Amino acid sequence: MNIAIHGIGFPEEFTPHIEKLTKALTAHGVNIFVTDTFSKLLKKYQANIDSYSKIQSKAMIADMDFIFSIGGDGTLLDTVCYVGKLETPIVGINSGRLGFLATVAKEEIDEAIALLINGDYTVENRVLVAVDTDKQVFNGLNFGLNEFTIHKRDTSSMITIHTYIDGEYLNSYWGDGLIIATPTGSTGYSLSCGGPLITPDARNFVITPVSPHNLNVRPIILPDDAALCFKVEGRGEKFLVSLDSRSTTIDSGDELRVRKANFVAKLVKFPKYNFFDTLRHKLNWGFDMRN
Amino acid sequence: MNIAIHGIGFPEEFTPHIEKLTKALTAHGVNIFVTDTFSKLLKKYQANIDSYSKIQSKAMIADMDFIFSIGGDGTLLDTVCYVGKLETPIVGINSGRLGFLATVAKEEIDEAIALLINGDYTVENRVLVAVDTDKQVFNGLNFGLNEFTIHKRDTSSMITIHTYIDGEYLNSYWGDGLIIATPTGSTGYSLSCGGPLITPDARNFVITPVSPHNLNVRPIILPDDAALCFKVEGRGEKFLVSLDSRSTTIDSGDELRVRKANFVAKLVKFPKYNFFDTLRHKLNWGFDMRN
Amino acid sequence: MNIAIHGIGFPEEFTPHIEKLTKALTAHGVNIFVTDTFSKLLKKYQANIDSYSKIQSKAMIADMDFIFSIGGDGTLLDTVCYVGKLETPIVGINSGRLGFLATVAKEEIDEAIALLINGDYTVENRVLVAVDTDKQVFNGLNFGLNEFTIHKRDTSSMITIHTYIDGEYLNSYWGDGLIIATPTGSTGYSLSCGGPLITPDARNFVITPVSPHNLNVRPIILPDDAALCFKVEGRGEKFLVSLDSRSTTIDSGDELRVRKANFVAKLVKFPKYNFFDTLRHKLNWGFDMRN
Amino acid sequence: MNIAIHGIGFPEEFTPHIEKLTKALTAHGVNIFVTDTFSKLLKKYQANIDSYSKIQSKAMIADMDFIFSIGGDGTLLDTVCYVGKLETPIVGINSGRLGFLATVAKEEIDEAIALLINGDYTVENRVLVAVDTDKQVFNGLNFGLNEFTIHKRDTSSMITIHTYIDGEYLNSYWGDGLIIATPTGSTGYSLSCGGPLITPDARNFVITPVSPHNLNVRPIILPDDAALCFKVEGRGEKFLVSLDSRSTTIDSGDELRVRKANFVAKLVKFPKYNFFDTLRHKLNWGFDMRN
Repeated sequence: MNIAIHGIGFPEEFTPHIEKLTKALTAHGVNIFVTDTFSKLLKKYQANIDSYSKIQSKAMIADMDFIFSIGGDGTLLDTVCYVGKLETPIVGINSGRLGFLATVAKEEIDEAIALLINGDYTVENRVLVAVDTDKQVFNGLNFGLNEFTIHKRDTSSMITIHTYIDGEYLNSYWGDGLIIATPTGSTGYSLSCGGPLITPDARNFVITPVSPHNLNVRPIILPDDAALCFKVEGRGEKFLVSLDSRSTTIDSGDELRVRKANFVAKLVKFPKYNFFDTLRHKLNWGFDMRN
Repeated sequence: MNIAIHGIGFPEEFTPHIEKLTKALTAHGVNIFVTDTFSKLLKKYQANIDSYSKIQSKAMIADMDFIFSIGGDGTLLDTVCYVGKLETPIVGINSGRLGFLATVAKEEIDEAIALLINGDYTVENRVLVAVDTDKQVFNGLNFGLNEFTIHKRDTSSMITIHTYIDGEYLNSYWGDGLIIATPTGSTGYSLSCGGPLITPDARNFVITPVSPHNLNVRPIILPDDAALCFKVEGRGEKFLVSLDSRSTTIDSGDELRVRKANFVAKLVKFPKYNFFDTLRHKLNWGFDMRN
Repeated sequence: MNIAIHGIGFPEEFTPHIEKLTKALTAHGVNIFVTDTFSKLLKKYQANIDSYSKIQSKAMIADMDFIFSIGGDGTLLDTVCYVGKLETPIVGINSGRLGFLATVAKEEIDEAIALLINGDYTVENRVLVAVDTDKQVFNGLNFGLNEFTIHKRDTSSMITIHTYIDGEYLNSYWGDGLIIATPTGSTGYSLSCGGPLITPDARNFVITPVSPHNLNVRPIILPDDAALCFKVEGRGEKFLVSLDSRSTTIDSGDELRVRKANFVAKLVKFPKYNFFDTLRHKLNWGFDMRN
Repeated sequence: MNIAIHGIGFPEEFTPHIEKLTKALTAHGVNIFVTDTFSKLLKKYQANIDSYSKIQSKAMIADMDFIFSIGGDGTLLDTVCYVGKLETPIVGINSGRLGFLATVAKEEIDEAIALLINGDYTVENRVLVAVDTDKQVFNGLNFGLNEFTIHKRDTSSMITIHTYIDGEYLNSYWGDGLIIATPTGSTGYSLSCGGPLITPDARNFVITPVSPHNLNVRPIILPDDAALCFKVEGRGEKFLVSLDSRSTTIDSGDELRVRKANFVAKLVKFPKYNFFDTLRHKLNWGFDMRN
C-alpha cells in the first residue's frame, strides 16, 4: 500500500506524532511518500523518520492509495487542490483543534491507521465547485472544496453581479460580493455572511450575498447540477475572485461560469465519525452560556 | 374534460371574472364542478353562472382533470389540502395580487384556459411535508405544502425540541419553536425567521429555528428524503403544532415523525411563468429604494 | 443595617451557602428579613438559620437598606418587581451559573458582604420600561427590567402593530410580535430576534420585530425618553402582552402607551465587576470553536 | 445673505433646475458662491447663470450662511467634508431620487428657498465620527458623517481587531472588518451588515462586525461620548480604513482612537420633513410585496 503525506505547516511540538504515525505505517508494510512542502517541514523540525520517498511527479501521486493531510482544515483544502482529478482518498489528521474536515485527533492516529489497513472505513464524495472563464485563471486549478467568491477590491465601492441560473436571469446582486458555497463550505465564510448550514449528503449549492445593499436579498439554495453564470460590473476595473483561500483578479467584462466539478474530493470517514457531533461541537450547540 | 373550482373567499368585485371564466370553460365544452365552500361564495355574491354541478363526494373529486384555486396563496394551500392524495393538478388564479402559488392574474385567465385546453402547460410536482404521531392529528390530513411548525403556547416560556435525523441526534433546539419547511415554504414563515430561499427543483427540507436562544444555531438544509423525529419538552404540558395554516396541540411526551409525503401537490405551470421573475417581483429585488 | 433576602427557587444543594451567607450577615450585625416565598424555600430545605424576621408589609420593605436576590437572572427580575418604586438596591447572587444580573458567585459571597458593609460598591441605575392602558393591567405592576412584548396568541395568524413615537407614525409592523427592550433586556429575547446589544450606560430603548413579514423591517434604536404608542390589529380578538416573564391578554382596540418608568432598578456593583467581561463570558466571545 | 453651492456630479438634464435655483436666490438678493468642482460642472453643462463668485479660500467659506449640496447622499457626505469645523448649515437638494440626507426634491426647490429666506426651518446637529492615529491620516480630514470602517485588504485572510471602550477591553473581533457608525450612518453600510437603525436624536454609536467568524458576535450600541480604541492584527501588514467613502491604509502596529468629533454637521430641516416618513419610504416598509 502506498500512502502520501502532505502538510503546509504544523506546530513543532506535533513532530513526535508524525514520527509515531510513520512508524505505525511502516510497521503495517506501507510505503510512505511525502510531498515537497511536507518534506521541507520534516527537515525543518529534524523529524526522525526511517524511510520515505519524495513525490517527484504527477504520475507518482496517481499511484497513491491514500493521502494523509496533516494540519487543519486549511491544509486539507490544500490537499484537495494537490490531488485534484486524481481523486486520491484523503485522511484528515488535525495537528491542533478538531476541524470540520481534519477530524482525526492525534490520540486517534493509531486507531485510524488500523481501521484503514483493515478496510474499516467509508469514502465520502464531496462535491467541488469549479469556475471557467474565457482566459485561464487559478493556473488551471479552477476548483474548490468550500466556495467560490466574487468580491469588490480594496477601496472600491460596491459591485453589481448579474447572476444567471441555467440560462435564466436570477438577480443583479449589489453589495460587497457573492459566495457560491458547497455543502462542505456551508460551515465557513457563507455561514459568517448569514448562509444556512447544509448537510454533506445534500446535493446543493448556496448563493450567499456579502453585505447586500438590498435588505430583501437572501441566501438561495440550488440543486448542485445547476449551471451558474456571473457578470460583474462596478466602478473599478478589476474584481477579486477566490476559490477556497486562493485569489486572483478578473476584469469587468469577464463572464464567470460556475458549476460542479466533474470529479470530487474523496474524504475517508472512520466508523465513529458523525457529522452532527462535529457540528454541535464546533458551533457550541450544547453550550449555551447565555442561559 | 371535468374541472373543479375551489375558493374560500374572494372580493365581491372579482365575481365578473369568475362569470367570464366559467363562460370560457363552458364554451370549450368543459364540465364545471364547484366545491361546497365555493358554491356558497357564488350564492353570496349572486354570481350568474349557467351550469355547474356541486361536488358531493371524494369519488367525484377523483374524476376531475384539474382544479382551479381562486383566491390567494392561502386558498391554494387549502386546495392542496382538499385534493390530498388524489393529486389533482391545480391551476392557481389570484383574485388579488400576484402570489408565489396563485400565479394566473385575472387578465390572463382566458389565455390560461386556452393553453390548458391545448395541453400547452407543464405540471410541477411540489413535495409535501407530512407528520405522524402515535395518535391521529389534523383529522388525518397530516400534510402541508409550506411547512410544519412546532411552537410554544401562549404565555409559556421557551421550549426544548430534541431533534433526530435518520435516527441520529442533531440538536436540542431551545427557543420559541422550530419550522420544517419545503422549498415551496421557503418563501414564507421560514424566510421571516432567517431561513434561506430554496428553488422549487431542489430536493430539500430546511429546519429553521424560531427565536433560538443559542445564537450559534442556524437554519440547516437537508435532503428531502430524510426521516426527522422531534420530541418536545417544556414547562407547559401542551405545545402547538401547525401544518401550513392549520394548528393543533400535542402533549409533552409525543414523538413527532416528519417526512416527505408519498404524494405531491401538482401545480399547473404555463409557458411564460418563471419562478425567478416571481421571486424578484415578490421580494422587490429590482427595487432598491435605499440607493 | 437591614437586609432582605428574596428568592423564588434554588437547588437544594445551595442551602449551605445561604446558611453561611446569613451567618456572615449576622456577624456583621445586620438584621435579616426574608420574603414570604423565600421563607418557604428555607423551610422546605430545612435551612439552619439563627434569626430572621419575615417581611409582613410594604412598609417593612421600605426599611430595607438592601435586598439580596438569590437564584438566577429570572429571580432578579422578580426581585425588581417586588421592590418596585421603593428602589431598594439589589445584590444579585447566583445559585447556579453566572448571570447578566445575578453576578455574585457563591465563592464570592463573603467578599461581597464585606464590600457592602464597607461601602465599597457603586449602585447602577437601570431603566425600567413601563406600559399604560386605559384599564389596569399586570395588577398595577406595569413595569419590567428587560422588555415589554406584544405577541400574537396561539393559533392566530400574524398581527399588525401600528407604532407611534412621540406622536409621529413610525410603522405598522406585521409579523408574530414586537419587543421593546431596555439596555438590560438587550441580551435577552431581543437578541434572539436579531436585536443589537446595548451597553448599560446607553440611554436607549430598542424596538425589535419578532419574525416580521417585511424583510426590510429591522430593529430600531431610540432615546429612552421617547413616548411610544401601539395599537394592535389582527384576526384574533385578543393579543398577548408581557413584561419580563409576566403575561396577560389585551383586546384589539386597546392603546398601549410605553415609556421609561419614573423609578429605576438599583443594582449593586462591586469593584471587580465588569459588564464587558460578563458579555464576553456569557456570549462565548473568546471561545470560537469554529476556528 | 451668502449661499455657497457645492456638487460633485449631477445628470446634465438637472441643469435647468440649477439655473432656476440660482435665479430664485438672486431674486431674493442672495449672493451666490460656488465651489471649484461645482463651477466646473456648470461650465461643462454650459449652465446659464447670471452672477456668481467662486470660492477661493477657507476664509470665504467661513462667510457663507448656508451651503447647498446638489446631488445625492454621497455628495452631501462630500459637502460635510468640505465645510468641516466651520459647521456651515447644509441644504441637501437631490438631483435624482430622494435620499436620507438630500431630502429636497427638484419640485420643492422654490418652496425651500422661500422657507430658508423666511427663517422657517430648523437646524439638526448630526454627530460626526473622528479618528486619530499617531501619524496623520485622511489629510487631516479625519471625520465622517456616516461611519468609520476597518477592513481587511484584498486577498488577505481575516483580521483581528482588538477593541477597547473607555480603556476597558471589549472584544477581539475576528472577521472581514468592523464598522463604527453614527445614527446617520445606521441606514448605510452598517445596516447591510446586520446593524440596527438608530434615530437621529439618539446619542449613540454602533459597532457592527463585518462577516464575523464567531456567530455570537453581534452589533453593540454605545453612548456617543465613548472613547474607542482599536488595534488591528492579521497576516497582511496593511489594513484598510475608511471614513464615509474616503479610504487609506494603515499598518499593523497602529492604534486607532475613535470618538465623536468636537464639531457637528448642521443639516437644514424644513417643516414638512419627517425622518420616519423617509425611513418608511426608503426601506419600502409600506410596500410588502411578499404578502
